[in-house]
Amino acid sequence: MAVRTHPYFPLDLHLPDYVPLQVDFDYILGIFFLAIVVISGSTWKLSGRHKHLSTAERVLACWFMVTGAIHFVIEGWVVAKADFYKDASGNYLSDTWKEYSKADSRYASRDTFIIAMEAITAFLWGPLCPLLVHGIFSVKPWRYTLMTIISVGQIYGDVLYFGTCFLEGFIHSRPEPLYFWFYFVIVNAIWIVVPFLCIGHAWGKISTAVGKPKAKRT
Amino acid sequence: MAVRTHPYFPLDLHLPDYVPLQVDFDYILGIFFLAIVVISGSTWKLSGRHKHLSTAERVLACWFMVTGAIHFVIEGWVVAKADFYKDASGNYLSDTWKEYSKADSRYASRDTFIIAMEAITAFLWGPLCPLLVHGIFSVKPWRYTLMTIISVGQIYGDVLYFGTCFLEGFIHSRPEPLYFWFYFVIVNAIWIVVPFLCIGHAWGKISTAVGKPKAKRT
Repeated sequence: MAVRTHPYFPLDLHLPDYVPLQVDFDYILGIFFLAIVVISGSTWKLSGRHKHLSTAERVLACWFMVTGAIHFVIEGWVVAKADFYKDASGNYLSDTWKEYSKADSRYASRDTFIIAMEAITAFLWGPLCPLLVHGIFSVKPWRYTLMTIISVGQIYGDVLYFGTCFLEGFIHSRPEPLYFWFYFVIVNAIWIVVPFLCIGHAWGKISTAVGKPKAKRT
Repeated sequence: MAVRTHPYFPLDLHLPDYVPLQVDFDYILGIFFLAIVVISGSTWKLSGRHKHLSTAERVLACWFMVTGAIHFVIEGWVVAKADFYKDASGNYLSDTWKEYSKADSRYASRDTFIIAMEAITAFLWGPLCPLLVHGIFSVKPWRYTLMTIISVGQIYGDVLYFGTCFLEGFIHSRPEPLYFWFYFVIVNAIWIVVPFLCIGHAWGKISTAVGKPKAKRT
């Protein structure tokens, strides 16, 4: 009576007490995008009070508030709640991870790299993101350095995320385009592309500042 | 006739064609420290030609030449030579990894996180290190940014290295103090402590430069 009770790949993954999603997929996506709109909208509005900020800096502030919230709340949840796939309460975050695990079952099977990487992402990069937004708003001299640090962390975690999957032959992902291409490839690629742009921004600003005061040298 | 043919932990690790070290442990360590002395000595000497460099900057140049060489040559080898533990040729690098695998058998068993992380370390951070030394010598405006990027990469890779071991219960290391405490803990801790100092150096320099030209703002 070996009935497969979960929707994840590889098919023989042992997750005995799996409870199917209690909420709708549309509901999960709806709440997610609503939260992004609310966070970036309010950050954009707030940033308007700081008249010295360029449009690029205001967009960066929105990005770091949104990515920080995703890191801390969504990724923090999967680190803290090891048995999310057994959660029958209809908890939004547990059901989000039940859905995403179709693209990568290593979250349900508690792959040690995934959990270590997500712990750093959630509880280090997560809180550093709003700190950086404070640094951008207050024109702190360390804002570009912190932007570089967070962005390198995001890219490196993501490269290792893809790299380990590649070395394992992508066995943890359901083959449907929605799961493999959209959730796994495209969604995660955002955290390579955008941090690269952030590093480019910081790199240019730092180089301009560092390259200038040569006269000061003794 | 289940004879254990290798010295690695966990004891039931399957590595059928293991060939014992062909060279002496003293020889491995001797060559290693000789190489460090030669690389850092010649970098120190070379850096003396650049009269503008502070002592701290000269020490940083030595560190990045040494760590870059270790990344590219030693860590590059273990990525490229998957079956190093079968190597009967007496190759120095294969035997180095046979020895180090006593502290962490995931190199021999080709743990996907280890290989992905070491590939980035060897073939990205590795070549970027001498590029950074060139940047330090030539007073490039991007030298502190690149120093931050490399150092964050080193720390994050190392934190995940320890983090995955912690989550797995340190099962891959032989229990003797030489292997667990010296090879595994102390040697790897260097790549957390020193990069932190490098980031501190870069952070201070960038903050000084960025914090200055406020008059330029329109």
